[in-house]
Amino acid sequence: MPDAIIEMRSDTMTKPTPAMREAIANAEVGDDMSGEDPTVNRLEAMIAERLGKEAAVFACSGTQSNQMGVRVHCRPGDELLIEAWGHIASYEAGGPAALSGVTCRPIIGRRGLLEVSDLEGQIHNDDQHLCPTRLVCVENTANRGGGVVYSLGAMQQIGAWAHENGLKVHMDGARLFNAVVAGGYTAQEICEPVDTISVCFSKGLGCPMGSALIGSEEEIRIARRARKLFGGAMRQSGIVAAAAIYALENNVDRMQEDHDNARAFAEALSQIEGIEIEMPETNLVFFDVEQEYGTAFALSSRLRELGVNINPTGPQSLRACTHLDVTREQSLRAAELIGDCLSKGLADVAETITGGPYASR
Amino acid sequence: MPDAIIEMRSDTMTKPTPAMREAIANAEVGDDMSGEDPTVNRLEAMIAERLGKEAAVFACSGTQSNQMGVRVHCRPGDELLIEAWGHIASYEAGGPAALSGVTCRPIIGRRGLLEVSDLEGQIHNDDQHLCPTRLVCVENTANRGGGVVYSLGAMQQIGAWAHENGLKVHMDGARLFNAVVAGGYTAQEICEPVDTISVCFSKGLGCPMGSALIGSEEEIRIARRARKLFGGAMRQSGIVAAAAIYALENNVDRMQEDHDNARAFAEALSQIEGIEIEMPETNLVFFDVEQEYGTAFALSSRLRELGVNINPTGPQSLRACTHLDVTREQSLRAAELIGDCLSKGLADVAETITGGPYASR
Amino acid sequence: MPDAIIEMRSDTMTKPTPAMREAIANAEVGDDMSGEDPTVNRLEAMIAERLGKEAAVFACSGTQSNQMGVRVHCRPGDELLIEAWGHIASYEAGGPAALSGVTCRPIIGRRGLLEVSDLEGQIHNDDQHLCPTRLVCVENTANRGGGVVYSLGAMQQIGAWAHENGLKVHMDGARLFNAVVAGGYTAQEICEPVDTISVCFSKGLGCPMGSALIGSEEEIRIARRARKLFGGAMRQSGIVAAAAIYALENNVDRMQEDHDNARAFAEALSQIEGIEIEMPETNLVFFDVEQEYGTAFALSSRLRELGVNINPTGPQSLRACTHLDVTREQSLRAAELIGDCLSKGLADVAETITGGPYASR
Amino acid sequence: MPDAIIEMRSDTMTKPTPAMREAIANAEVGDDMSGEDPTVNRLEAMIAERLGKEAAVFACSGTQSNQMGVRVHCRPGDELLIEAWGHIASYEAGGPAALSGVTCRPIIGRRGLLEVSDLEGQIHNDDQHLCPTRLVCVENTANRGGGVVYSLGAMQQIGAWAHENGLKVHMDGARLFNAVVAGGYTAQEICEPVDTISVCFSKGLGCPMGSALIGSEEEIRIARRARKLFGGAMRQSGIVAAAAIYALENNVDRMQEDHDNARAFAEALSQIEGIEIEMPETNLVFFDVEQEYGTAFALSSRLRELGVNINPTGPQSLRACTHLDVTREQSLRAAELIGDCLSKGLADVAETITGGPYASR
Repeated sequence: MPDAIIEMRSDTMTKPTPAMREAIANAEVGDDMSGEDPTVNRLEAMIAERLGKEAAVFACSGTQSNQMGVRVHCRPGDELLIEAWGHIASYEAGGPAALSGVTCRPIIGRRGLLEVSDLEGQIHNDDQHLCPTRLVCVENTANRGGGVVYSLGAMQQIGAWAHENGLKVHMDGARLFNAVVAGGYTAQEICEPVDTISVCFSKGLGCPMGSALIGSEEEIRIARRARKLFGGAMRQSGIVAAAAIYALENNVDRMQEDHDNARAFAEALSQIEGIEIEMPETNLVFFDVEQEYGTAFALSSRLRELGVNINPTGPQSLRACTHLDVTREQSLRAAELIGDCLSKGLADVAETITGGPYASR
Repeated sequence: MPDAIIEMRSDTMTKPTPAMREAIANAEVGDDMSGEDPTVNRLEAMIAERLGKEAAVFACSGTQSNQMGVRVHCRPGDELLIEAWGHIASYEAGGPAALSGVTCRPIIGRRGLLEVSDLEGQIHNDDQHLCPTRLVCVENTANRGGGVVYSLGAMQQIGAWAHENGLKVHMDGARLFNAVVAGGYTAQEICEPVDTISVCFSKGLGCPMGSALIGSEEEIRIARRARKLFGGAMRQSGIVAAAAIYALENNVDRMQEDHDNARAFAEALSQIEGIEIEMPETNLVFFDVEQEYGTAFALSSRLRELGVNINPTGPQSLRACTHLDVTREQSLRAAELIGDCLSKGLADVAETITGGPYASR
Repeated sequence: MPDAIIEMRSDTMTKPTPAMREAIANAEVGDDMSGEDPTVNRLEAMIAERLGKEAAVFACSGTQSNQMGVRVHCRPGDELLIEAWGHIASYEAGGPAALSGVTCRPIIGRRGLLEVSDLEGQIHNDDQHLCPTRLVCVENTANRGGGVVYSLGAMQQIGAWAHENGLKVHMDGARLFNAVVAGGYTAQEICEPVDTISVCFSKGLGCPMGSALIGSEEEIRIARRARKLFGGAMRQSGIVAAAAIYALENNVDRMQEDHDNARAFAEALSQIEGIEIEMPETNLVFFDVEQEYGTAFALSSRLRELGVNINPTGPQSLRACTHLDVTREQSLRAAELIGDCLSKGLADVAETITGGPYASR
Repeated sequence: MPDAIIEMRSDTMTKPTPAMREAIANAEVGDDMSGEDPTVNRLEAMIAERLGKEAAVFACSGTQSNQMGVRVHCRPGDELLIEAWGHIASYEAGGPAALSGVTCRPIIGRRGLLEVSDLEGQIHNDDQHLCPTRLVCVENTANRGGGVVYSLGAMQQIGAWAHENGLKVHMDGARLFNAVVAGGYTAQEICEPVDTISVCFSKGLGCPMGSALIGSEEEIRIARRARKLFGGAMRQSGIVAAAAIYALENNVDRMQEDHDNARAFAEALSQIEGIEIEMPETNLVFFDVEQEYGTAFALSSRLRELGVNINPTGPQSLRACTHLDVTREQSLRAAELIGDCLSKGLADVAETITGGPYASR
């Protein structure tokens, strides 16, 4: 039975299913800091192989994996290039600067995606006034761009250009498997042009927590030290790694459902007067309320009263997210309720939304 | 049935019991980053109340909680005073410097414990050459000092002196509950003189992972931001917080058993020729092998072949640890095997021990 | 006699005059780290009073003063708002991140200047994903914007808005006195709305080195510690402070000449076919070469052969700077030579320019 | 004519002589940030050659040069080994942690000097709890050890041991030339076993400010970037570099006089009842007042009234320093006045000394 609440704020909200809980409860464990947790070891091998890389390290969160990636490639005073909406630069609490002394240089792309033409001419020369450019960060899918997907060709071009120019490439793959399902490529293919990848198990994959950084053995050796430094080295973490193994085995292909639900939701919204929307590529649906109908905060507040959680992302814009705790029926019901709200008017709604991730993840 | 291996390297090695696994499997969860995980919220309230403080934040590891504590109290360029063997200074990957720009000034105490007389005269004046002194860190129990316990009086004196001098006090309480069980005071009493405390759930309390920092509301608000920065903010972390609640409810008083087992083990060792030992106060037993009998590494290697895991801490010294996965019978058996090893001689043992925590936790 | 070379790369290139050298040679000195250099003390009092603030600290460079300002106002993990071309964010070697763990958020203004309307809505809320916003940095004159000048009204509005919103304001006044001469206000008036100001003595003021940070007593006390940390605390620095006193007494009003020369140079350029130019407000003249005439690098290379140093700032753009080592005659001669170069064509010029500040200062 | 005050607090207090001022006033200068200052270039080449290394970079202060050295060799999270009294660890405002995220591990040597036997066994293994050991820092002369001098043999052994173990060696040569004059070796010989050296021009060499870091071309390239980051890159710094050239040409050999004066002063003190003293090796004289005669602060206060500046370094200890502004006559006069003070008693002296470097440099 679905939850009474239609929870479309984020796929970070997914709760472990009974089968996943069983995997958790039965996990074989050991001390991971000593390399003795068989489940963590199995997960690290599995995800490295899936992405076609040498090694992986299990971590607490996507933020931690990304920041480990930054630290692997950069020294203090270096800079990385990132699309202006990139999570690493904008939603990780200033980690590049505060943890690693690294400057993020935002590049304006298209819908959160970069092309080589955006990057050309951006590498700093030797002038001591400037930060040495070391790293390109790409996000796939690109959250704030609309959950959009890098094409294999675009990624290959970025990788080739970066490597020719002595730069490394890190992919924030918080939603890598959404990209894989939607992009018509394998995880290995899309990761081949990049050096390190973070993947997150607690989004569409449905785990309670956990992430991994994947790369070469040397990169992961350095990352493992960074994990310890950040306080991310755990003990019998097989308990949570077991959920990630379960998810990799069971929850990847089913993301097609989430994408289909997102599309159905978006199509229903596109019929509503007062809504502007672009068709989603994956499980994230960004849409705008026309000003004359009220604000995004008012709509979000009213929806919350009606049992639908969708967060504003700006004065007139919102993001809805589908995932394994949102059914097709719920998706359509949510669209229907949005239509009701707009037709009844939002002018008098108190804007009560506070906190929440505001689509920052 | 106890494990075939007698695992005395560290209480970090404890594995969750069936009852704890059941608590984990059935945990009610939500998105903790949005403050919506009821189990995490309950744990944070429970541990704050147990220690008599306003607030707490759940974290990934004891290292993370300690480093959050350092960051709460210090700015870059500041310094903290810590006993020379302190975990925060010596075994957290250089976190004070690397994460927070903070210098640790080691003070030589007695068995890892500080007294006010050690601290007097150590506060830097305003001279620009020197780091402003901000924080005193105490460790209770003090691991490398022998798992020894601060008396209530000593802690009260340190707290009073520090606060009179404008300093804060952070307690590394990775084994706080061992101290409480052995020290004849409540957690609230021993924490009253200090500002922030880290506790670790994955040592003697038997959880697979997790820790907490406890302090005032304002301190914990700052710590929560540090947790996010370090990548320690998780999602449905009620899964692991449930284990911590179970442990606080079931595994504190039973630590007396571990202390009794440690004492029985130590007494048995004290009868063995070639062993030098001080009686333990809690669950950590440090002992030395006399040089003519061989090295600590040789003894550790031979024991491992015999199914007993005990790590060296130096050329002639070792540490054994009792915890809920070590029975009385196993403790005595381990002592017996040590006696056997020494009486048979260690000269020809290949020293194969590699890795492992070497009593760093 | 003017130098054989017409040096228009930057006013950082100015060399001390005989009178300034005499002031240097005769400076009364003491140990500044002990607060005993009478000349440094006099300079600090003089510049603080000139700007209407409580205190000042002498530093090695404008970069050091700016970075001290960032450190005074921000903790690691905080962010500052700055116009996208701002020197602090773009030309100080990544100092905010690398020295202070601070993230710079670039805001796109107009010609390097910000207005309150650019800043409104940019202050981060409490969301843990985001960096707390602490500081607004303004640059006056704004170098990359064309040496343009903040109006008193604009600065007052920014100050009022920032303070209402709990932010501080730091002014990068590397060319503050150019702004004062051109802006029709006193230094005290333009600094009143801001908290800290850096001024640079080694640009249009003509000193060999040196800078100051000016603010409240408490801010300067913190800055003084940062200066020591950065290795910027000197000993008998009265030697160089004497030049700064000389400059404040003799070289401020005469900047009008530099501005007049810049205007004359710009007017001459505006007559040249193939040059696009906006009239300068102060001593910096940015202009473009139309593509059909060749590249900025080619023009710069050819000019260097002809004894005129002007640096490119991009493929088609250059910056020329007037200062006390550039006469009116030289300014006009430079313009004339540019005209000659363009009329003769640049297609075959080898682009030999390397190094140099490229208008980064 | 010597100053009315006998200034024995530190050789940092030396004031430029008329001849040095003339060198300053006549210095040929250019823009050093663009590599165009001929005097700076000459100084850098001269000091590199004198020490037998490839390259050098001029900096603002000894602290800056040392911190550049730390940054050249270490990444955040690394550690360096240093004698417990070492300036880099104790008197540079926490720079290793605050600027570079580096942990200093203090090693207790003898009189501030290290031997290989102190270092053996101190290199951290790969355990993730520990900081990777990267650097050994030595101080020659060792200030707090009594201005004592490394023997050539000791330095060669340290260098060989460090390099065999994959470590680098940085020498804090703030008083390198005192060591050279007293040690019976050339600068090149004593620097041969180490990688980078900082030298300070504003101590016994008598310059108003300035320092240099010397090492390989690659190390100095990295250091130059660090200098820019720290705000230590100056413009027409030939003004101050000229003093350093003058000092290297004129003020090195004459340090023998300072050492002779220090010895004469110490011998005179050794005759005074109530004084305990070890004979100095160079220009720093540490001595103790016996408690029954009063405190070091009282003696320092009384001496100041009598026109002699000598700072306390602890409750009963003081440091006096000879340099080119202290004559033999003044040295003996100071000793005589100390004798007078002690014979008359200090019990009633108000302790008015505040501030000052307290022998931190």
